[in-house]
Amino acid sequence: MIPCRGRVEVGPLRLERGGELPQVELAFETWGRWDPQRKNAVLICHALTGDAHVAAHDPQDRPGWWEAAVGPGKPIDTRRWFVLCSNVLGGCYGSTGPASPVTSGDPSSRWGGRFPTITVRDMVHAQRRLLDALGIDRLALVVGGSLGGMQALEWAVTYPDRVEAAAVLAAPPAASPHAIAWNEVQRQAIFTDPAWQGGDYPPDRPPRRGLALARMLAMTTYRGRDEWEARFGRDEVPPGTDPVAARAGDYATAPRPGVPAEFFRFQIESYLHYQGEKLVRRFDAATYVTLTRAMDLHDVGRGRGGLKGAAERVRARVYVLSISSDLLYPVEEQRRLVRALRRAGKDVTWHVWRAPWGHDSFLVDGAGVARRVMEWLDEPGAAAAGPREGAAVAVGEGRP
Amino acid sequence: MIPCRGRVEVGPLRLERGGELPQVELAFETWGRWDPQRKNAVLICHALTGDAHVAAHDPQDRPGWWEAAVGPGKPIDTRRWFVLCSNVLGGCYGSTGPASPVTSGDPSSRWGGRFPTITVRDMVHAQRRLLDALGIDRLALVVGGSLGGMQALEWAVTYPDRVEAAAVLAAPPAASPHAIAWNEVQRQAIFTDPAWQGGDYPPDRPPRRGLALARMLAMTTYRGRDEWEARFGRDEVPPGTDPVAARAGDYATAPRPGVPAEFFRFQIESYLHYQGEKLVRRFDAATYVTLTRAMDLHDVGRGRGGLKGAAERVRARVYVLSISSDLLYPVEEQRRLVRALRRAGKDVTWHVWRAPWGHDSFLVDGAGVARRVMEWLDEPGAAAAGPREGAAVAVGEGRP
Repeated sequence: MIPCRGRVEVGPLRLERGGELPQVELAFETWGRWDPQRKNAVLICHALTGDAHVAAHDPQDRPGWWEAAVGPGKPIDTRRWFVLCSNVLGGCYGSTGPASPVTSGDPSSRWGGRFPTITVRDMVHAQRRLLDALGIDRLALVVGGSLGGMQALEWAVTYPDRVEAAAVLAAPPAASPHAIAWNEVQRQAIFTDPAWQGGDYPPDRPPRRGLALARMLAMTTYRGRDEWEARFGRDEVPPGTDPVAARAGDYATAPRPGVPAEFFRFQIESYLHYQGEKLVRRFDAATYVTLTRAMDLHDVGRGRGGLKGAAERVRARVYVLSISSDLLYPVEEQRRLVRALRRAGKDVTWHVWRAPWGHDSFLVDGAGVARRVMEWLDEPGAAAAGPREGAAVAVGEGRP
Repeated sequence: MIPCRGRVEVGPLRLERGGELPQVELAFETWGRWDPQRKNAVLICHALTGDAHVAAHDPQDRPGWWEAAVGPGKPIDTRRWFVLCSNVLGGCYGSTGPASPVTSGDPSSRWGGRFPTITVRDMVHAQRRLLDALGIDRLALVVGGSLGGMQALEWAVTYPDRVEAAAVLAAPPAASPHAIAWNEVQRQAIFTDPAWQGGDYPPDRPPRRGLALARMLAMTTYRGRDEWEARFGRDEVPPGTDPVAARAGDYATAPRPGVPAEFFRFQIESYLHYQGEKLVRRFDAATYVTLTRAMDLHDVGRGRGGLKGAAERVRARVYVLSISSDLLYPVEEQRRLVRALRRAGKDVTWHVWRAPWGHDSFLVDGAGVARRVMEWLDEPGAAAAGPREGAAVAVGEGRP
């Protein structure tokens, strides 16, 4: 019997870019029951700031980040499927990462900025060991969005014999220069905060401002243009109603000779500041640096003869979801992946989803996305038809 | 005879958002000769970090930011046209702005972060006074890209009797929430640098790192996806060849136990750092804050019954250029402007230019853009035909 929460030691782990992590633990959560006969395991891979808590385990439990997608009677129905999610290698929610002690049991020996460079492939290797430890020899489905989608894709390529189906949501075959650029600016925002101290900040004095700034930038790449236009437009914050702004101590506070004191902020700015402050309360800055770097290094074709070589390794059926309003990983990038898989003769289904919420759409409408994935999972053979209409969403472009 | 370089006092100036600037000077440059009979004045408005130096005045002079566009025999032919450009109000290239002394002649009394909030409309009011001072009563053309395009549009709406033609390049009728968000993150990058000191930094100790970071982010919104894909892709900087990187003192420098020291940077990252450092050597941080704020506040319909009301005021012929790869002000935003002008019965021509360099395309191919503008200027009546083919570029979408 696999527990619904746990932590397993899976190290030491040799890393793709050199070096070794002497001790690696992965924190995980599970839902439903593993049935070795039916091989009913669904591995969910979380995104950059996610954790293993995909959904509540009971009505008293706090909701998870994909609450609408996973549970009894929900799209990923835990009466039928055994669902597993682990906090990613390098994460700060229980797995080994920059916030972990270098020496087990000695919290003063934090990795911080010294944590080695890891890749999405390292994450998948660590996850594979976790599955071994739990006795799960085969995945009916591996699914994830964004960084989670990169992992799902790496799973299908790295361990083709262990994956029956992979759903890659809003993730590219390799990080584009634009995606790298946005990540680099975010890291530099953290480094510019004097509290960063080369990554050796004490846990109670983290580079809050830098991390908040990174998150603010990230949000501009996660959300949709039309969504923000409709939701915020050019609305202003009524004076005196924005406590975050009042604390920020910025350009509005200096007295100006001859000019009336003014505090002014657009709603969109207030929203960004709120999102920045929210992340700082729950996430570690060095972890943010480590995981964004892993995303930059994501290139499923590396060392495999490029995307073509990677595609040829796949044996799983593959579902690819593009989001029409995704600024971070635009439709064109998944098109390349789909093309490569088709040319390699693989069973691939591609949906281009006209959703307004940008990259985050897979989180905003978790139920809708998961429903589409599970419908696809239950309909083998529908793939060759190419792009098709989903239940609740209109599908537009979709020719690879 | 108007000199080819000069500075004119145009203040005091009451500001749109309240308060007054007691002394306002605008620095300007001119090319060609003003002919009061032919009314041959072309006003060029520069973008965020530009200056009045559009082009060299003679072969020994340094090149300007639109060198390929302006000069004898060039698209904006200075044998025929009298060309004028002034450093924008709030700028740091000779006009009154945050880097100017509060009290004339006392450099220790710098405005810095206390400079009042200004708007694009204020910029245009100041420019109008400059034209008055120079005796230029009418503009044959006002043209600009980005912040310069916002000014060109404001000119046509604010002073309809003084503008015969306006060319609005890669600029929206109002700043979108996404554009505001990107500007706000850039300002916060400056504020996060401890050297900012509320805007009261000494001129020799500016917030270099914050301003560089702001510029790095800005570059991600100025350039094209396909351009970066082709130019940088996922190429890495060969070790030891990136002096900017070596100075940055960031995540790669800390020794990592058990892991080989690694310095690693993608070419796109090196490019961003280079661009950041380059701007810091030539631009002032408080000016950057002031001008980005003015861009956020750009809304040509404010106080005029919205975009519709603004469009109705226009008497000039209007040329609107959209750039297909523009991430900052996407095509859709100019479509709104063009629609409003057409509905108001105005003479408007819209080109959607399939250029790969993103928002900056109007700078990258200055000659091509200026040629199209001047061809349009010489062909009155062609407007009603709607989007048309340019000489050197393919035109795609263009239905408002």
